[in-house]
Amino acid sequence: MQAATSWLDEIRWDRDGLVPVIAQERGTGDVLMFAFMNREALALTVERGQAVYWSRSRGRLWHKGEESGYFQTVHELRLDCDGDVVLLSVTQHGHEPGIACHTGRHACFFRRLEGGQWHEVEPVLKAPDQIYSRT
Amino acid sequence: MQAATSWLDEIRWDRDGLVPVIAQERGTGDVLMFAFMNREALALTVERGQAVYWSRSRGRLWHKGEESGYFQTVHELRLDCDGDVVLLSVTQHGHEPGIACHTGRHACFFRRLEGGQWHEVEPVLKAPDQIYSRT
Repeated sequence: MQAATSWLDEIRWDRDGLVPVIAQERGTGDVLMFAFMNREALALTVERGQAVYWSRSRGRLWHKGEESGYFQTVHELRLDCDGDVVLLSVTQHGHEPGIACHTGRHACFFRRLEGGQWHEVEPVLKAPDQIYSRT
Repeated sequence: MQAATSWLDEIRWDRDGLVPVIAQERGTGDVLMFAFMNREALALTVERGQAVYWSRSRGRLWHKGEESGYFQTVHELRLDCDGDVVLLSVTQHGHEPGIACHTGRHACFFRRLEGGQWHEVEPVLKAPDQIYSRT
């Protein structure tokens, strides 16, 4: 049924078939991370109610939390005026406070520009080797 | 002086020499818009304390507010873990509440996915022809 996925056709996919996605934490409003989705990832995200991204480095679907257990429940999806950016409202699971960054931090935006230098201003909540030790 | 701009070298510019930028409103935490900057735009943003983007459609620097008068004061710049996305904390000037979107809305993310369709869920605060009538 084409009608059921026509909302996907309204997205202006980039030349690689991707759309940039911003994940914002519900409640705090913190911008947790930025990633990309292709059509399949976005469809799966809506179907599952959990964020599924497209990993450009690995060239495959990336169900956020598949290795760490730190899944993201997606409460709401928004599309911007140009139809080429998606904003998610999410809950970050698996740790309190949530860990969205692979460095073990709450969010990926942990470097702040101060005096002409980037300074790390957010703590590591859990060491990455403890997050990704599931084999 | 190279040292003064080395923070720009830490950014992983994409193949077009751009970096994606998320503008988040200080106070509300609202994600207002998403755009790109090149090296010059980012340097100017920091120099002026106001957002200067790179307009991909117009192929030139775009001092946000240059036509509308709706400038953005930049309070803070953050860089993500991969060094390829910038997050700004801004105040959106010129209207109360702020208008960041060229459609006359507070923010660009005014379409919400509901029942398999994108619905416009945010009001137009001022008609675009009233915003861009400065000649």
